[in-house]
Amino acid sequence: MAKKVVTLGEIMLRLSTPDFKRFVQADIFDVTYGGGEANVAAALCNYGLQGTFVSKVPDNPIGQSAINHLRRYGVDTQFVARGGKRLGIYFLETGASMRASQVVYDRADAAISEAEIKDFDFDKIFDGASWFHTTGITPALSDSAAALTEAALKAAKAKGITTSIDLNYRKKLWSKEKAKEVMTKLCAYVDVCIGNEEDAETTLGFKSKGTDVTKGELNLDGYKDVFQQMKEKFNFKYIASTLRESHSASDNGWSALVYDGNEFYHTKQYEVRIVDRVGSGDSFASGFIYGLVTEMAMKDAAEFGVAASALKHTIPGDLNHATLSDVKGLMKGDASGRVQR
Amino acid sequence: MAKKVVTLGEIMLRLSTPDFKRFVQADIFDVTYGGGEANVAAALCNYGLQGTFVSKVPDNPIGQSAINHLRRYGVDTQFVARGGKRLGIYFLETGASMRASQVVYDRADAAISEAEIKDFDFDKIFDGASWFHTTGITPALSDSAAALTEAALKAAKAKGITTSIDLNYRKKLWSKEKAKEVMTKLCAYVDVCIGNEEDAETTLGFKSKGTDVTKGELNLDGYKDVFQQMKEKFNFKYIASTLRESHSASDNGWSALVYDGNEFYHTKQYEVRIVDRVGSGDSFASGFIYGLVTEMAMKDAAEFGVAASALKHTIPGDLNHATLSDVKGLMKGDASGRVQR
Amino acid sequence: MAKKVVTLGEIMLRLSTPDFKRFVQADIFDVTYGGGEANVAAALCNYGLQGTFVSKVPDNPIGQSAINHLRRYGVDTQFVARGGKRLGIYFLETGASMRASQVVYDRADAAISEAEIKDFDFDKIFDGASWFHTTGITPALSDSAAALTEAALKAAKAKGITTSIDLNYRKKLWSKEKAKEVMTKLCAYVDVCIGNEEDAETTLGFKSKGTDVTKGELNLDGYKDVFQQMKEKFNFKYIASTLRESHSASDNGWSALVYDGNEFYHTKQYEVRIVDRVGSGDSFASGFIYGLVTEMAMKDAAEFGVAASALKHTIPGDLNHATLSDVKGLMKGDASGRVQR
Amino acid sequence: MAKKVVTLGEIMLRLSTPDFKRFVQADIFDVTYGGGEANVAAALCNYGLQGTFVSKVPDNPIGQSAINHLRRYGVDTQFVARGGKRLGIYFLETGASMRASQVVYDRADAAISEAEIKDFDFDKIFDGASWFHTTGITPALSDSAAALTEAALKAAKAKGITTSIDLNYRKKLWSKEKAKEVMTKLCAYVDVCIGNEEDAETTLGFKSKGTDVTKGELNLDGYKDVFQQMKEKFNFKYIASTLRESHSASDNGWSALVYDGNEFYHTKQYEVRIVDRVGSGDSFASGFIYGLVTEMAMKDAAEFGVAASALKHTIPGDLNHATLSDVKGLMKGDASGRVQR
Amino acid sequence: MAKKVVTLGEIMLRLSTPDFKRFVQADIFDVTYGGGEANVAAALCNYGLQGTFVSKVPDNPIGQSAINHLRRYGVDTQFVARGGKRLGIYFLETGASMRASQVVYDRADAAISEAEIKDFDFDKIFDGASWFHTTGITPALSDSAAALTEAALKAAKAKGITTSIDLNYRKKLWSKEKAKEVMTKLCAYVDVCIGNEEDAETTLGFKSKGTDVTKGELNLDGYKDVFQQMKEKFNFKYIASTLRESHSASDNGWSALVYDGNEFYHTKQYEVRIVDRVGSGDSFASGFIYGLVTEMAMKDAAEFGVAASALKHTIPGDLNHATLSDVKGLMKGDASGRVQR
Amino acid sequence: MAKKVVTLGEIMLRLSTPDFKRFVQADIFDVTYGGGEANVAAALCNYGLQGTFVSKVPDNPIGQSAINHLRRYGVDTQFVARGGKRLGIYFLETGASMRASQVVYDRADAAISEAEIKDFDFDKIFDGASWFHTTGITPALSDSAAALTEAALKAAKAKGITTSIDLNYRKKLWSKEKAKEVMTKLCAYVDVCIGNEEDAETTLGFKSKGTDVTKGELNLDGYKDVFQQMKEKFNFKYIASTLRESHSASDNGWSALVYDGNEFYHTKQYEVRIVDRVGSGDSFASGFIYGLVTEMAMKDAAEFGVAASALKHTIPGDLNHATLSDVKGLMKGDASGRVQR
Repeated sequence: MAKKVVTLGEIMLRLSTPDFKRFVQADIFDVTYGGGEANVAAALCNYGLQGTFVSKVPDNPIGQSAINHLRRYGVDTQFVARGGKRLGIYFLETGASMRASQVVYDRADAAISEAEIKDFDFDKIFDGASWFHTTGITPALSDSAAALTEAALKAAKAKGITTSIDLNYRKKLWSKEKAKEVMTKLCAYVDVCIGNEEDAETTLGFKSKGTDVTKGELNLDGYKDVFQQMKEKFNFKYIASTLRESHSASDNGWSALVYDGNEFYHTKQYEVRIVDRVGSGDSFASGFIYGLVTEMAMKDAAEFGVAASALKHTIPGDLNHATLSDVKGLMKGDASGRVQR
Repeated sequence: MAKKVVTLGEIMLRLSTPDFKRFVQADIFDVTYGGGEANVAAALCNYGLQGTFVSKVPDNPIGQSAINHLRRYGVDTQFVARGGKRLGIYFLETGASMRASQVVYDRADAAISEAEIKDFDFDKIFDGASWFHTTGITPALSDSAAALTEAALKAAKAKGITTSIDLNYRKKLWSKEKAKEVMTKLCAYVDVCIGNEEDAETTLGFKSKGTDVTKGELNLDGYKDVFQQMKEKFNFKYIASTLRESHSASDNGWSALVYDGNEFYHTKQYEVRIVDRVGSGDSFASGFIYGLVTEMAMKDAAEFGVAASALKHTIPGDLNHATLSDVKGLMKGDASGRVQR
Repeated sequence: MAKKVVTLGEIMLRLSTPDFKRFVQADIFDVTYGGGEANVAAALCNYGLQGTFVSKVPDNPIGQSAINHLRRYGVDTQFVARGGKRLGIYFLETGASMRASQVVYDRADAAISEAEIKDFDFDKIFDGASWFHTTGITPALSDSAAALTEAALKAAKAKGITTSIDLNYRKKLWSKEKAKEVMTKLCAYVDVCIGNEEDAETTLGFKSKGTDVTKGELNLDGYKDVFQQMKEKFNFKYIASTLRESHSASDNGWSALVYDGNEFYHTKQYEVRIVDRVGSGDSFASGFIYGLVTEMAMKDAAEFGVAASALKHTIPGDLNHATLSDVKGLMKGDASGRVQR
Repeated sequence: MAKKVVTLGEIMLRLSTPDFKRFVQADIFDVTYGGGEANVAAALCNYGLQGTFVSKVPDNPIGQSAINHLRRYGVDTQFVARGGKRLGIYFLETGASMRASQVVYDRADAAISEAEIKDFDFDKIFDGASWFHTTGITPALSDSAAALTEAALKAAKAKGITTSIDLNYRKKLWSKEKAKEVMTKLCAYVDVCIGNEEDAETTLGFKSKGTDVTKGELNLDGYKDVFQQMKEKFNFKYIASTLRESHSASDNGWSALVYDGNEFYHTKQYEVRIVDRVGSGDSFASGFIYGLVTEMAMKDAAEFGVAASALKHTIPGDLNHATLSDVKGLMKGDASGRVQR
Repeated sequence: MAKKVVTLGEIMLRLSTPDFKRFVQADIFDVTYGGGEANVAAALCNYGLQGTFVSKVPDNPIGQSAINHLRRYGVDTQFVARGGKRLGIYFLETGASMRASQVVYDRADAAISEAEIKDFDFDKIFDGASWFHTTGITPALSDSAAALTEAALKAAKAKGITTSIDLNYRKKLWSKEKAKEVMTKLCAYVDVCIGNEEDAETTLGFKSKGTDVTKGELNLDGYKDVFQQMKEKFNFKYIASTLRESHSASDNGWSALVYDGNEFYHTKQYEVRIVDRVGSGDSFASGFIYGLVTEMAMKDAAEFGVAASALKHTIPGDLNHATLSDVKGLMKGDASGRVQR
Repeated sequence: MAKKVVTLGEIMLRLSTPDFKRFVQADIFDVTYGGGEANVAAALCNYGLQGTFVSKVPDNPIGQSAINHLRRYGVDTQFVARGGKRLGIYFLETGASMRASQVVYDRADAAISEAEIKDFDFDKIFDGASWFHTTGITPALSDSAAALTEAALKAAKAKGITTSIDLNYRKKLWSKEKAKEVMTKLCAYVDVCIGNEEDAETTLGFKSKGTDVTKGELNLDGYKDVFQQMKEKFNFKYIASTLRESHSASDNGWSALVYDGNEFYHTKQYEVRIVDRVGSGDSFASGFIYGLVTEMAMKDAAEFGVAASALKHTIPGDLNHATLSDVKGLMKGDASGRVQR
């Protein structure tokens, strides 16, 4: 029986310009659907686990299409509530070279931001589950979404389920102050904390010294310092962060740092030629969770996560369509890209 | 010097499925922009007039793209204000045969619904203008939009500019009661009133006997009765309605009835094979306005309007890209569709 | 709890030329997946039932994509076996006017044709099911597929499940003689028999007098005669046939005739403008099954089936993406195709 | 050994807007290549003859692509000369319903218009040929092209090869006066003369009474009168004209009238739903030529031609991709458009 | 009030193959419009200036589409004359790695090449303008175009407007001798002279020692020498050249050298991954002009220009859709390409 | 008269996902046709030789389309036999960065695998030919295909024609043992032997020490050792191998090693940014053959081959559309990728 991992969050309609076009040039949009927690659920299905996604979508064909997109890749969507005004949207313009990708969010009043605790039966949802994952985006959407996130975390912990959160600060959704207040409360229920470079500071207030993300230099010492502070305050079981060296919109260095309160481990760094970097953080999270759920050692789980997310950079869309054997092949060192016949 | 016609309203991002696909099948959306009053402004530019469109769009690339779409076709957009949360969106699934086209609106919180009178300098906007046109959609968007519409109508009348309104009742935006209350107030400033089949009743309360729009039978006597009531109450200079015989989503009969308080005139009826019927009402309005602004007789203006809108049914998108010579050619009776070399 | 309907058969990769291109002009193929029994399962999910599809697909990404296509639309695919050589393919060139659509089959050695009874656990598959449906295509694929079909029918009957078959003779798969031999044996386990115009004769040997399908004239008396013979021989509970008046590749008349051994009922006839007629028979079958499973009277089930399949003609792909409310709307008589806002 | 038919003329780059878009909406153009005489050569290859196309194209990749397009469909292009300034272009906007298709020609200075007699070795070109065909477009391109056409006709006649011409008057290329002067001279070498409705008058001065092509009414008596005058003056072996009833840009009636100096024969009339009507005249010409070359009776050749060209209306592009069996199937009366599996 | 910059030149239809296809593989062409001076006008609108483009296009839908393309991006096209035979075309095949991009010009007889001075009212055109820009392509098109260019330069100078020219030698349009003769005459009216690597020699005869453009090595000393000679002869206020290190069709180094008669300044060099390098010179020119018009120091203007044009390499089409804030962001050093949310 | 080169083998339908999509994401497939020997024939046509391709395809529109694809590029297809069950297919997912391209073969029962010697008239086929080329794929398809290959090689040798083979081991088609047995027999008739890195060992049993293809390190000494063994055993006139340094799916180093029994020559190494690497081996083979057929020295032929195949990596599809002048330009050292106007 495949292990069950539950994720809770928003799924959005993603509208992206093709062929490196800027928004003002677009005559068509490529249509797909994604969101941090949905992306994690889908990736876990690819690895053979049972990903269950919990959310709310409007009761119209656009909401249905979001559900269908996840079902296509095996996600269990039976607990997605229907109702509310609209599906959140994000517009994506894919950058190249020194032109950054650009995201325009249009997520106000999304159904999930109006979801209430009574829309969900957590007892059933967590029945048989091994893990619960969410991100800092969900509580940022609205007060009711924050309450929902807290209720889910509590329910999971009450069932003895391991919980993880990806900090994922979104400055357009809430202030640092509000984020810190809410996230600090939520982290009390969290076992595994994942954050990319800027989130630890903005959402939890831990200051990582000397990393200027627009330069792309890594500051491992700063990270370690922050991780230790986080461990101290929240007693997380594992803390992880992806590390991006952003050479340009086309080429990035990509690795991860993990910490179990005892040992720091910096994974192999991949140099990736980027097809689509949206969802790369989620693909690390899902890979790392996969590793931990299947009882890999922390280092192996981290290597799995970073290999999985390196592959994600080469795949269009939010979801990571790398398979278990793709990830394992890359972990074993075959990055030669030779044709597989 | 081309005559200037000002229109005020919403412009939306239109996302439509290609190739008769249903929403749940869509992998791309065709991207265009439109809205009743924008469509009228653009069509008038095609006929050689100066269409000036007044609205508000968000200060982001999606808002800019909406403006660009209108500029492409010659519309003067200098008075479009920037700001607000988002651009309204509508999703369109094009039907065929007995499967109706379906529209999903996602227009809540659109920038125009939050526009205020002080965003616009009506003195400048109406400077040199011959005509002002709006629709019943704009006041339905919000109370401030209704106030804006009223202010615009008043300003136009104060300058001695002819005004027109297309009733265009949208049941998802407001109740019949609210519509009636607001529209009755606005109609006091209106010279030319255009409505399709159902609007006169829902927005102004005039009951057209015996037309069941799902059957597609025309009831000219009922219309005449309603027109007379409208004339009596509001003393409109002209009242016009398009008449659609909806045989199916693919084939429609299309004509118009106009009235000047004296004479009823029923235009030629066109049997149209439909490529895209969205915006057909607007294309009649713009054609009829064109005729009246250029001092055609009412009958000729009506024939121009109905020929223009017959052609619109054959053109994808919201805007009517029929040219002056296309419309005149069709009015002269060449509906043979022979290749023009 | 939604009622469960199980279907068994082949799912194929469908490669079709876009924009009415002939095969020799094609530079891209539109990719979708379908097959008679899969189409039925998917349509039933659209109506709110639990469609469960049983088949075998190769253990490669093409096979996975076929499964994903069905999951996207809610079909339960947990019992689809993996293995075998390849996924069957069919190439489709969509015709227009007097140019017929053309299908090139490339289904030899498809995984399902090599499936064995032991690949499936019918006890689990039929657990809680209300209905089992298959077609005359499945047993035509190979001797083992015929044996599999028989085993499935027997297992269903043993559980007291209602069974249906769509005769669907495919002359490229087997001879009339072979068909008659196998189908006669299978029909012993069948409650509801559906056939289009030519199948009753070719697969069961019942001669319908005077229908020349290339002329498009209906011969209801001939049908009735055949139905009575079928009733007599197999004691089917219901017998149904769609009736197509093929005016051209673009326009068809479409209705159905049903019989319960007592009364003949000829449904309303729809005149359809065709977008894609592949799968129209399956869409009738699924609609008729839906009606019977939800305990409609035979006439209502037949009207539901024919309305559903009229809508299918307007939807690209094999699957019928008409929803329950679309079908009910059309049954109530709204074929006007007016925009639904 | 397949019979060899030589054609001489222009091949152009065709740029057409997809999805019924008007030119001003186009973001892509569909790319294909065609021209009256090239279309005839390609269609004859489809029927199993050896079509040899003679022309001149520029020595650049655009010219090469034109050649490649014909080679793809089996045309012998070994005698196409290279050189000159450019390939002629035509832009096509496909109409629908009452909106006519529109063609913008951009063919000035095309390589073929500057071709000289010495670019071609007619002795080799006509070696083993059974038929030579050209149109009234070629001599209209330039004086040198007219001289080339005359030289080719003379060379063909000198070898005892049957010759045919499609009158094809193009008012943007030359005046009626010039056309009459040149075409009269050329017709001295012509055995079979094909013209559509307006050409006989404009290019040869024969007045067909009472046909108003924008009305779409046929005037068979007028045609017969003209044919008799043509026979008298030029002693053509066969005279043929297609007859189009242009109901709209979407639907046409289509038949042909042929005459052998003795008997008039009006073919079956097809009602066609149009996908692409460009090249329909050429598809009749090629079908009629095919019939005569393969020694069908005049009536059968005419029926073959009109069936072939009815099918052409359903196929995108200039070339007729109907096969011999497609045409024969339609001639035998199967216009039902039933799927061919 | 935005500053007004007038440009004069050709606008062409650009037809490009998608997805790195070679011409002989193309089934569609991407459609856009561009030309050196039009590109400059459009880019300046992006930065908030009023770009006014002066040209002549044919009075047909293709000419209209070219105008529409510029209007879409805010260019004032009111002074574009209508008439002449055709719109010039260029075909573009985008290269990759060691395969160079290829351009096939088809611009003979373009409307602008036949434009006459009397088609334009320079008094009105230059009313309120701050700058006039043209290129060496315009005078190369024809003698009348050269006369037109000279008249425009004179008119601008007479109004005290700053003038600039981009030398842009096109060897297929004229000989070096003719170029030198005409350009020398024109440069008498020029304040700011821009040239890429090869132009100074071919059009003005100044020999830059030792630069072999197929090697991609820069020879700054040679440039300086040439700039000094140019200053001496024409007393330009500023002289500028972009410097391209062409590593391959996919990767280029890109910088600029500017000179004010006093100081040489070599900008930062960007290493660009190329999406579309057509129009990169124009994007430098427009950026440099923007800087100078808005009274930046020469160095800052040059840095603005080179940052703007570095971004252009990442944007498909001729026009530079980089915004003011995009360029300023890159100038400030953020080339990390991190997603902008 | 162009020299004639005959090739014998399979042509397949190639279905590839666009835009770096994975198979499970694909909604369309790009359609093209190719196969090792067909690719060689087409490339040679590009260089001005007469490529004649011998194969068997099914007598249906898919088989016809394969033939058409080759005819488009000038290949002589008159000896392609018709019949058999189906055209082989391969599905291609284009990789990027560390994600390898993936090929799913679906070639069982392809027509060529069932072709018999009597389907071909080798006397006619080889009439006037200078060279015969095939690959190790053809004999791997079936025993009859192996017999056919042997018959063709014998017939060629009997006519004194130079023969070449590309070893091309395909592990899914046959075992190493079977390959060794058959290929050893065939090599007796071969003059020029081409193999990529792994083939010499798998098909002929010569062990190249120390090359691990997943690492991308070259081991020239190992190659030389193997080449000498091959020379000794089979007395090949020339032995050649391409050498790939697979840095990733996006970037490869590419060169070739050739040997004439006397001298080893390692060509220039190109660093290629990959658009499509399928067919790169064939493009080396065709370039090398071109060089030898046109009597270049071995080194020059090898440099031609490796330059040609470097360019192939930048061109989508199986065929190499590099022209003679493209290859010669690159050989002369212009790899700068500057736009060719």
